[in-house]
Amino acid sequence: MNTDVLVIGGSAAGLVAAMSAKSNHPEKKVTLVRKEEKVMIPCGIPYIFGTIGTSDKNILPDGGLEKLGVEIRIDEIASVDAQKKVATTVGGEEISYEKLIFATGSQPVIPKWLKGADQKNVFTVLKNKNYLDELHAQLQGLKKIVLVGAGFIGVEVADELNKKGYDVTIVEILPRILGLAFDDEFAAAMNEKLIERGVKVRTGIGIKEVLGDGTVSGVLFDNGEKMDADAVVLSLGYKPNVELAQKAGAEINSAGFIVTDQYKRTTLADCFAAGDCSEKRDFLTGKISRVMLASTSCAEARVAGLNLYSLSTICTFRGTIGIYSTCIGELACGVAGLNEATAKTEGFEVVTGSFTGVDTHPGCLDCTQKQTVKLIVSKGNGVILGGETLGGRSVGELTNVIGIAIQNSMTINDLLVAQIGTHPLLTASPAGYPLIKAAEIVAKALK
Amino acid sequence: MNTDVLVIGGSAAGLVAAMSAKSNHPEKKVTLVRKEEKVMIPCGIPYIFGTIGTSDKNILPDGGLEKLGVEIRIDEIASVDAQKKVATTVGGEEISYEKLIFATGSQPVIPKWLKGADQKNVFTVLKNKNYLDELHAQLQGLKKIVLVGAGFIGVEVADELNKKGYDVTIVEILPRILGLAFDDEFAAAMNEKLIERGVKVRTGIGIKEVLGDGTVSGVLFDNGEKMDADAVVLSLGYKPNVELAQKAGAEINSAGFIVTDQYKRTTLADCFAAGDCSEKRDFLTGKISRVMLASTSCAEARVAGLNLYSLSTICTFRGTIGIYSTCIGELACGVAGLNEATAKTEGFEVVTGSFTGVDTHPGCLDCTQKQTVKLIVSKGNGVILGGETLGGRSVGELTNVIGIAIQNSMTINDLLVAQIGTHPLLTASPAGYPLIKAAEIVAKALK
Repeated sequence: MNTDVLVIGGSAAGLVAAMSAKSNHPEKKVTLVRKEEKVMIPCGIPYIFGTIGTSDKNILPDGGLEKLGVEIRIDEIASVDAQKKVATTVGGEEISYEKLIFATGSQPVIPKWLKGADQKNVFTVLKNKNYLDELHAQLQGLKKIVLVGAGFIGVEVADELNKKGYDVTIVEILPRILGLAFDDEFAAAMNEKLIERGVKVRTGIGIKEVLGDGTVSGVLFDNGEKMDADAVVLSLGYKPNVELAQKAGAEINSAGFIVTDQYKRTTLADCFAAGDCSEKRDFLTGKISRVMLASTSCAEARVAGLNLYSLSTICTFRGTIGIYSTCIGELACGVAGLNEATAKTEGFEVVTGSFTGVDTHPGCLDCTQKQTVKLIVSKGNGVILGGETLGGRSVGELTNVIGIAIQNSMTINDLLVAQIGTHPLLTASPAGYPLIKAAEIVAKALK
Repeated sequence: MNTDVLVIGGSAAGLVAAMSAKSNHPEKKVTLVRKEEKVMIPCGIPYIFGTIGTSDKNILPDGGLEKLGVEIRIDEIASVDAQKKVATTVGGEEISYEKLIFATGSQPVIPKWLKGADQKNVFTVLKNKNYLDELHAQLQGLKKIVLVGAGFIGVEVADELNKKGYDVTIVEILPRILGLAFDDEFAAAMNEKLIERGVKVRTGIGIKEVLGDGTVSGVLFDNGEKMDADAVVLSLGYKPNVELAQKAGAEINSAGFIVTDQYKRTTLADCFAAGDCSEKRDFLTGKISRVMLASTSCAEARVAGLNLYSLSTICTFRGTIGIYSTCIGELACGVAGLNEATAKTEGFEVVTGSFTGVDTHPGCLDCTQKQTVKLIVSKGNGVILGGETLGGRSVGELTNVIGIAIQNSMTINDLLVAQIGTHPLLTASPAGYPLIKAAEIVAKALK
């Protein structure tokens, strides 16, 4: 068959790439090929174990694609011939294209050194409905679950399984959960909250083996200690799916991502890549970034879709900025850009300022929660490098306020004279808005 | 007595000006003179009638001032001699100063043409604890309350009094409540919500007289119709308090505000003005703006406090941008910059885009609410002029995302390639984030 735009992969990046391609080039035929009949909303996956309750309610809707007239095809592409501009399915059918977008995503890492990971009741958080349904079903009747790796996914899954009554232990080699994303004071608050909610948290320790006789019976820590477990969920990060692009001749970078320019063009003519499989460069350092976020993927997919046939939408930002947020119970946190530890590791000379207030005004309402903002700022020129937030649910969007500030290279001076909107029930007070108060603290330190 | 920095007025602008002055010039003596023993949190006032329950819980804390060492003086300044740099209290005491900041605020407008407004049980929303306590007490035992004017304050007071069981009617001469701030589709949604909650809403009609024999008995509409009322609350806007500055010789602009430059310097040497009493210029047009917001006041006060002795903190923005939000029950809304109607009235040629999604993902959570974002964009260059939001409580901070985008003169192109952070429980989905989807719609229309 023939198509104009062929998108390979149907998760966040594939979906948005196809919609953006069709929406901006309505005269073109756009075909999305994906393996899965039903695609999981990636960030919703941890919540199918508790809050949402079932994977059936966590499905990325096809309505947007269908409404635009994107052709959806449940199939697998086995190879791409970038010279001939033809993709071949596993069944041997050829699909010719004008433009191709690799949106092949990522898959969980299982470290090679980890013994015993191939046993029954060892799971990963694979972004696949059938796998997750199987996982969910297998956990029924089991009791003790060990989560290995306390990044966002691990922490969210742990909290959700704990809510459902499992005996959950989360194991993390760093001193705190979420310790890669957040500076210690923020990670510590989340760590404490997770413990308060009943999850057993073991930090500063790794595992070296999953124990069992073909079925999990426990884990062996790297200090020799053992712990019983009925199931082990490995949440040790993801790796990009690049085999298809690599076989087609696309250049892969040293971190294993498909090389792209800032318009998401690969080194193969007329081939783009977007999402977890594709190269990202850090906004502040230009270095290869390992950020894998659905939000980043969607932004990249939009850029690819808009610029397929000509560079119509200029990339006005220098690279990728990680903007994350999460929530344990009613305690939410977020980070945009670099945290203090990462900034220092990268070699930035920084000044930081942190302020804790409340997220309503006055602070006596039933819904009032504490709110903390920390800013990480370049000592040399006052440019905001990053920010962290902790508080009620409004910190999700507050983190985006900081993200937009960073993307505009705002300085502390700019923030001090910036205007924000406030409302008693919706935000902190104008006189005690933690973002601005933190900026004031940084400004004084910069003097 | 002598002081270095004299701040006149103790509400949002005065508080922040004094704190900023002392914090940035710790070697200086800073004195804040205000009339009120206890100052109301201005935006919290509507909520003392319901959610908060009492003015005692809505007091602007003095702790920040005291901790910094700002001297607070409960007194009234009768005059300022800007040549001699001496202020005189009503008791005749002289206070010499190096720098003075007028933060004299604003007071409710009672239109001259309105007959019968001087009767018992006619109130305004004066920002004064004693007055509000008296108002609150007087309403006890009364039943039918008519609010006149459906701006933010009027709507919030109406909703709160309704919650307490009063029979509340709100009267507004525009076709919808909040009709000055919002375009019709947003105002209509809030209008409907207020009615749904039991407030009687009369729009498209004005009143010409408060009826009664010395005590309110009703109102007379401008179409001749009458309505019974036990109390009338006038919420028809505020006017700046500028008498003191005017008597001292400060120039007053045609709209009645104290003229200032962008560092909040008045035309009198060493005299600044901040907050509702001071001139604002619109960010996009440079015209005199009538925006009166605690958040704007705090931003101005910060600028004044930072720049008292030298222009240390450069104003990097061109003027004032109104950023408002409010909430009726669980339905919140916000606006940053110009709405469509205002933009057109100002002469901008605009393109708009509006998208409605949900504020979590998936959209099936207990806490999920619809979320709408509308963007108002210059047709000529794609610069974002304004944005409106409607949804759950996260739209308070989402409105600030738009506000920061506008202050950075971001274009639709910039938004299309911008990165945002998302989380299932905290924000809309990355593929359906209404702010970005609205930008996509505008981008297509601009082509």
